[in-house]
Amino acid sequence: MENILWPHIQRLKTSVPLIHNITNYVVMNNTANALLAAGASPIMAHAQSEIEDMVNICQALVVNIGTLDEYWSTSMINAAKKANELSKPWVLDPVGAGATSYRNEIIAKLLELKPTIIRANASEIMALAKATNIATKGVDSTAESDEAIEAATSLQKEFGAVICISGETDIIIGKDQKLSLKNGNALMAKVTGMGCSASALTAAFAAILENKFEATVAAMALIGVCGEIAAKSSSGPGSLQLTLLDKLYNITEEEFRSHLKIGE
Amino acid sequence: MENILWPHIQRLKTSVPLIHNITNYVVMNNTANALLAAGASPIMAHAQSEIEDMVNICQALVVNIGTLDEYWSTSMINAAKKANELSKPWVLDPVGAGATSYRNEIIAKLLELKPTIIRANASEIMALAKATNIATKGVDSTAESDEAIEAATSLQKEFGAVICISGETDIIIGKDQKLSLKNGNALMAKVTGMGCSASALTAAFAAILENKFEATVAAMALIGVCGEIAAKSSSGPGSLQLTLLDKLYNITEEEFRSHLKIGE
Amino acid sequence: MENILWPHIQRLKTSVPLIHNITNYVVMNNTANALLAAGASPIMAHAQSEIEDMVNICQALVVNIGTLDEYWSTSMINAAKKANELSKPWVLDPVGAGATSYRNEIIAKLLELKPTIIRANASEIMALAKATNIATKGVDSTAESDEAIEAATSLQKEFGAVICISGETDIIIGKDQKLSLKNGNALMAKVTGMGCSASALTAAFAAILENKFEATVAAMALIGVCGEIAAKSSSGPGSLQLTLLDKLYNITEEEFRSHLKIGE
Repeated sequence: MENILWPHIQRLKTSVPLIHNITNYVVMNNTANALLAAGASPIMAHAQSEIEDMVNICQALVVNIGTLDEYWSTSMINAAKKANELSKPWVLDPVGAGATSYRNEIIAKLLELKPTIIRANASEIMALAKATNIATKGVDSTAESDEAIEAATSLQKEFGAVICISGETDIIIGKDQKLSLKNGNALMAKVTGMGCSASALTAAFAAILENKFEATVAAMALIGVCGEIAAKSSSGPGSLQLTLLDKLYNITEEEFRSHLKIGE
Repeated sequence: MENILWPHIQRLKTSVPLIHNITNYVVMNNTANALLAAGASPIMAHAQSEIEDMVNICQALVVNIGTLDEYWSTSMINAAKKANELSKPWVLDPVGAGATSYRNEIIAKLLELKPTIIRANASEIMALAKATNIATKGVDSTAESDEAIEAATSLQKEFGAVICISGETDIIIGKDQKLSLKNGNALMAKVTGMGCSASALTAAFAAILENKFEATVAAMALIGVCGEIAAKSSSGPGSLQLTLLDKLYNITEEEFRSHLKIGE
Repeated sequence: MENILWPHIQRLKTSVPLIHNITNYVVMNNTANALLAAGASPIMAHAQSEIEDMVNICQALVVNIGTLDEYWSTSMINAAKKANELSKPWVLDPVGAGATSYRNEIIAKLLELKPTIIRANASEIMALAKATNIATKGVDSTAESDEAIEAATSLQKEFGAVICISGETDIIIGKDQKLSLKNGNALMAKVTGMGCSASALTAAFAAILENKFEATVAAMALIGVCGEIAAKSSSGPGSLQLTLLDKLYNITEEEFRSHLKIGE
């Protein structure tokens, strides 16, 4: 896996896939900039009058429910349906899963539409499993990360999606595949929208790679390595936000390979 | 007062209160980042289908009307009602008060719901007093700042809220209490959303402190001192935006105490 | 033309015109900051209940359709009508023109309201001409830039607006007038919303200058020169975003004059 990731990252810059984002207000600017810096081309649009047309011209779709409401939820569902109809990959970022019953209800509808990839943190992944009544063993003595992995594995089997649990260690789970990435830096948790950028990058790689497990690994490896390098030259979360964009734009093969930490 | 502020700032980082923001599109990213940098945890959500549930899980609420519309106004009002029902503090930031009659109408409805704290600039505070027909003496020879203080004092009495008039000097008015802060830098006025970040930080301190006057002073002192220090190392408003976030994250007790300028 | 631009730039800082922006979610923060840095004062508002009142208090209006929907489109149309009624200049930024039939339909309605200035990239300008069935010669051997200039010239004649085609070279077309600007840097294309900031600055200059051709040139020259200087001290698109704001704020006459590249 180590050897194929850098070529994928290079290919993103030459392919310039068009990525349609239905995402939250808080992170739209950063997400668009992260996609541009890494080589993709962002669209941000949500109008019900054009949502299918936008999916029609993009190469991949991101549905991020961070600031959802009744209108946007309909757009999200219609966009996901259209992506399926056109066999285009789409990534679900279930921000705040479990926080409210409304959020869980919309998530359940989106899961029924079988996202290609789901990226979320551990607590959101566990909330997804609960929201869809997927049976988990209910082992009471395991650590939270074990419970999240169990939930992710169940979600993978039920919906067929590649699942990424992001956190200090990112865990990517595909059909009979599992891999972990130990890049990143704790300062990244102090900048809003890092996960949202990761989801958008995942869609960008999914747009250019047949293998969606590899696409997810490439995206998470890229943002993890870039964030780790950027954090070292940042004096706080404000500067990290921009040094990360700079690094997504100018990372070299040497930097990427020397920092990458893949585990099982 | 000088001696209790730093412990409050420290406590914010260890308490990590969850702050629910119904705020304007322009500043959502900065506001979330300011909360994170100072130690709080932001939620941004506005859907009528979940607004009460979000208030239910937060420790304090911010209602910022900057980019209000008919849908969002209803969410704001419902959220404020729920916050009152649950006795949770909520901060009103009446952006653009006085600019349009629609804005004044919504503000009047929000004031009836008795915000815990109101933070605004002098002209907004004066517009609030007019929008609610609070009698002001109409002294015609006083400076604008005197008129704003008079308006703020009337608002404090009428609605029971702590009032903060922010500007070159920040003036905080509570029941039989008044204090001024002379920190900050003129460059801060060239960055959008500084006041909005101040309101969000006020909510964060209100979430962890019983004394809402102290909470308001702590928030305004923190952002004022951090902005002042950050401005010195900024070459313009672009860099100030990020150096402020860095400083909110890494300010030391020595820096805070040596810069703080409290007046009567 | 060279000699009148700097005085215009200076005048913006002393006039502080109020610019009303109905713009897209992605760029609201940057746009507000670009206006502030250059000396203008931004309003961002979209509620149908106050849109005419906001136009009433501003000196110029920007309509940017980037993240339009059915509600916002109505606000845009109502705002443009009100601007016309009050003889206030308004700038149309037709983001994504040609991408969907819905977008084209709204653009056609906005063009009927005769924007004072239209700023867009070459492909959007060509889409505008198509959306409004303006006959173009359909010369099949010309370069894309020639086709865009032809479309812009037709749009200028049909609707009377000053047209700016922005790109590596910015081309500004007025009634019997044409001028090009060769400032800028390729890195600017890697930051979202540069064009949107340019449109907002165009409105700012249109607010203070009777001659709307000059206003458009002043805005494009300012952002082009600032972007060019800022890119030299940026290590990527993240830092460019903030160094551009710094430079809009602190550019000197010497810097501006020595970098400005005007062509025919």
